[in-house]
Amino acid sequence: MAPQLDGYFAEVDKLSTHFINRLAKAVAIPSVSSDAARRPDVVRMGEFLAAELRALGASVEMRPLGKQPDKPELDLPPVVLARYGSDKSKRTILVYGHYDVQPAEKSDGWATEPFDLTVGDDGRMFGRGSTDDKGPVLGWLNAIEAHQRAGVDFPVNLLMCFEGMEEYGSEGLDELIEKEGKGYFADADAVCISDNYWLGTEKPCLTYGLRGCNYYSVEISGPGADLHSGVFGGTAQEPMTDLVRVLGSLVDTDGRILIPGIDEQVAPVTAEEEGLYEGISFTMDTLYESLGATTTIHDDKKRTLMARWRFPSLSVHGVEGAFSAPGAKTVIPAKVIGKFSIRTVPDMEIERTNEAVYKYVKEVFAKLGSKNTLKVYPQHTGKWWVASPNHWNFRAAGKAVERVWGVKPDMTREGGSIPVTLTFEQATGKNVLLLPMGSSTDGAHSINEKLDKRNYIEGIKLLGAYLHYVAEEAQE
Amino acid sequence: MAPQLDGYFAEVDKLSTHFINRLAKAVAIPSVSSDAARRPDVVRMGEFLAAELRALGASVEMRPLGKQPDKPELDLPPVVLARYGSDKSKRTILVYGHYDVQPAEKSDGWATEPFDLTVGDDGRMFGRGSTDDKGPVLGWLNAIEAHQRAGVDFPVNLLMCFEGMEEYGSEGLDELIEKEGKGYFADADAVCISDNYWLGTEKPCLTYGLRGCNYYSVEISGPGADLHSGVFGGTAQEPMTDLVRVLGSLVDTDGRILIPGIDEQVAPVTAEEEGLYEGISFTMDTLYESLGATTTIHDDKKRTLMARWRFPSLSVHGVEGAFSAPGAKTVIPAKVIGKFSIRTVPDMEIERTNEAVYKYVKEVFAKLGSKNTLKVYPQHTGKWWVASPNHWNFRAAGKAVERVWGVKPDMTREGGSIPVTLTFEQATGKNVLLLPMGSSTDGAHSINEKLDKRNYIEGIKLLGAYLHYVAEEAQE
Repeated sequence: MAPQLDGYFAEVDKLSTHFINRLAKAVAIPSVSSDAARRPDVVRMGEFLAAELRALGASVEMRPLGKQPDKPELDLPPVVLARYGSDKSKRTILVYGHYDVQPAEKSDGWATEPFDLTVGDDGRMFGRGSTDDKGPVLGWLNAIEAHQRAGVDFPVNLLMCFEGMEEYGSEGLDELIEKEGKGYFADADAVCISDNYWLGTEKPCLTYGLRGCNYYSVEISGPGADLHSGVFGGTAQEPMTDLVRVLGSLVDTDGRILIPGIDEQVAPVTAEEEGLYEGISFTMDTLYESLGATTTIHDDKKRTLMARWRFPSLSVHGVEGAFSAPGAKTVIPAKVIGKFSIRTVPDMEIERTNEAVYKYVKEVFAKLGSKNTLKVYPQHTGKWWVASPNHWNFRAAGKAVERVWGVKPDMTREGGSIPVTLTFEQATGKNVLLLPMGSSTDGAHSINEKLDKRNYIEGIKLLGAYLHYVAEEAQE
Repeated sequence: MAPQLDGYFAEVDKLSTHFINRLAKAVAIPSVSSDAARRPDVVRMGEFLAAELRALGASVEMRPLGKQPDKPELDLPPVVLARYGSDKSKRTILVYGHYDVQPAEKSDGWATEPFDLTVGDDGRMFGRGSTDDKGPVLGWLNAIEAHQRAGVDFPVNLLMCFEGMEEYGSEGLDELIEKEGKGYFADADAVCISDNYWLGTEKPCLTYGLRGCNYYSVEISGPGADLHSGVFGGTAQEPMTDLVRVLGSLVDTDGRILIPGIDEQVAPVTAEEEGLYEGISFTMDTLYESLGATTTIHDDKKRTLMARWRFPSLSVHGVEGAFSAPGAKTVIPAKVIGKFSIRTVPDMEIERTNEAVYKYVKEVFAKLGSKNTLKVYPQHTGKWWVASPNHWNFRAAGKAVERVWGVKPDMTREGGSIPVTLTFEQATGKNVLLLPMGSSTDGAHSINEKLDKRNYIEGIKLLGAYLHYVAEEAQE
C-alpha cells in the first residue's frame, strides 16, 4: 500500500520559509573550493552542516583527507560523514552531496550578490550553490526535520557523505569511499545522489546512465625553442602545421569519429531502446535555447538524445603551447599539445579505446612525413556508468516522483560524467540512483545560478517520499 | 682614391674603453617600452641620448608622439631627431635606430644582471639592449666623437632618427617619418639602418631585402557560449572541429602553401640569382644550431636560403578562444580564432594575396557543410622590401666592410620584416641600406643578449668608414 505521506508533505509546506532560510545561511558561506583563500569558508560550511546534523540528532564524523596534492600547504576540507538512525529492521540508504561551490563574483555579471540568496517574486532563488549542490544537500536535512516535527517515523536509516572538493576534482574522496565501502557504508542497501538536473524545466527525471571520458594529449615538438616566423618560416618543419593536420583527422563536422576501432565497440541499439526516446520530455527548441544557437548536428529529438547519451563523441578542446592571446604574434611554437577527449559509452573499454587512438594518431602523423616528434597519451580516463532502472531503488524513486509531481519521471542518461557514481557502485556493490532536484535552466556553473522555490520545496517532499517508497519496496 | 681612415681607426681603438663605458651607461637604463611602469626609464634613455648628442655638438629635437593608443593615460616616448653638420657641399645620410629594449629579468634565466653590462674575458658583452639596438645607436655617436678627437673632418652631414617604441610596434613613428620625409629629412641623400644581424658569426653582410608579412585571423563561431563536452558532445557542431580542418588545409609539413594564387605571384628565380647563394657564408650546421634541432624542410644551403629570403612561407601561430592552459578542461569553445601569417616576397601584391586567402578559406569551410559561421580577415599586412644593391649607398658600405673586415660582405636578404625600412624608402624616395653591427648569435630578444666587443669596436670603425666611402662615391 502507498505510504501515508500527507502529514510529512504538509509539514514541509509549513516549514518552507525555515528551509529557505537554512539555504540562505548555507549560500552565505562562500565555500569556493578552487580558491585557496576561501578554504576557511569551505571548512566553515562543513562545520555548519555538521552542527545542523547534530542538532537533528544525527551522529557526525568530520573526516580529514590530508593535504591538497597541488598545494601541499593547504589542508583538504573534511568529508562530513553522518548517520541518522540505526534500526536494523529498516533499509539503509547512503546519500551523497557536496557543500563546496564554483567561484562567483558580482563583477562576473551576476544580477544579484552571488552569496546572498535572493528570492524573486516568481520563486527563483538566485545564489551560488543554490542548486549545485547546497539545495539538494539541505534537502536531506530538511526531510529529517520535517519528519520529526510532523511526528512521522523516519522510514530508513540514512547514511550521508558530503564532500567539500567536488568542484575541484573531489581530491581524496575516491580513496575514502573505497575504504569505507565495507566500513562506514557497510550496511548501505542502495545509494542515492542528488547532484544533477532535469532534462528540461517541467518534467522530473531519474538518471540511470552516464558517459565516460577519456582525455588525450597529442604533443608534437621539433625546434629547441619558439622561433620567429620571419627568420625560420620556410626553413623549419613546424609542429603546429603537423598538429592541426592530426587534430583535423579525428572527427568531422557532423561528429563522426574517424578513428577506426571506436564505433565497433558501441553496444547496438535494441528494439526496446528504440521506443524509449520519443516519450521523453525534450524538444529541439530546449536544446537550441541552451545552445544559444541552432548549430546542431541532428535536427530531431531521438537522434540528438542518442548522440548525447548512448553514442560516443569526440571534442577538440584546444592547443597548449601555441599563441592563444588576442592580437598577432609571429611565433613558430616549438612544442604544441593538442587536447581532445572521447565521451565513452557501453560497451567501450578504456584500454581498447586508448590503443585505437594511439594507433590512428601515429598513422596519421607518419603519413605527414614529418621530422618532428609525436607523443600521444591520456591525461585521464573514466568509465561510463549504466545502472539497472528496474531495481527497487529506481522503482521507489519513480513512485515518489509520481506522488509528488503527478507524472511518471523520464528515465534519462547523461552525456557527462559524475565519476563518484561509479566509485560508489564499485565500493558498495549496490545500485546507485541519480535523483535530481533542480532543472536544466538552473545554470549550475554560470552566473545567476538559481534553484526554483518549487523545485526546492517539492524536492524536499520528493526525497522524503523516496525514502518511504524505499521502505515499502523493501517490504514487498 | 680610398679615404684616409687610419687616424680615425686608431682613435676608435684608443677610445674603446670610453665607448664601452658609454654602452654600459645606456644598458643601465632599463628602457623597456612594453612595460608602462618603465616608461620614465624609456624617456630617461631618450634624454641621455639627447644630452650626449648635444655634448658632441649636434642639434637635437625631442619630438613628442602623443598618447599611446592602447594606454591613453601614457605618453609615448619622444623620437630623438638630431643633425650633425649642415655643409651643403657634403652628402647627407639619414640613420635610424631605437633606444628602447625588450623586457628582461634576471629570473628569466639570465646568467648576469640584464641591465648591468658584463664584459667577459672572451669579449662578449652581456646586457639587454647591447646589440638591439643601443650598441649600433651609440655607434653613430662614437663615430662622431672619434672624428673630433682624431681631428678628422666628418665626411657627411648626419641626420639621426632614434625612436623609443620599436619593441612595441613603433607607435606613431610612421606618421612622423611620412611627415618629415619632405621636412626634417628633406636633404637626406640615402638612408642607413643598423638594426639587424649578420647571417652567421664570422662574415659581415649588407642586407638589401626583407619579406613582408600578412597576418590573418580565421574566426569560427557557433554556440552562444562555451559548452560542456559531456552535455553537448555529439549534439552540437563544434567550431574547433571546423577550425583545425581549415588550418590543416593551408600548408603541408614541407612548407608548401596549398592556397591557389600565391605561388603564381612569386618572381621567377633568375640565372644571375641562381649563382648568388653558394658563396654566402652560411652552413646547415649554423641553422641546426640556431634551430636547436635538425627538423628542417631542406637539407641544403641554397634551397634553405631561398626558402627564407625569396619564397613565401605560411606559419600557423595558434588559436584564440580554445583551451590553452596545461591540464585537462572538457570545454567546447563557442568561438575560436585561428591565427596564421604568410611571409611575402616580390612580386606578391597584398590585395591579391588577401583575396586568394579569403577565397580558399571560404571554399574549404564550405566543403565541411558546417552550420557554424566563418569570418576570415587580416590583422595586419606589410609589403616586402627589396633595394638595389648596386646603388652607391651599398657600394660605399661594401667598401667599408672590405676596409674594416678585410672581406667582401655577403649580400643578404632577411626572412623577417623591418617595416620602418619601407617607410623610410617611401617617405624619402631614397635608397635604404641595412648595415648590421651584431652577429647571429647575439640573442636580440632572448636571455643573455650580448654584443661582441669586436663587433662593437670594429662596427664603430665600419660606420665611420661607410660615411667616408659615401662621400667618396658622391664625388665620383
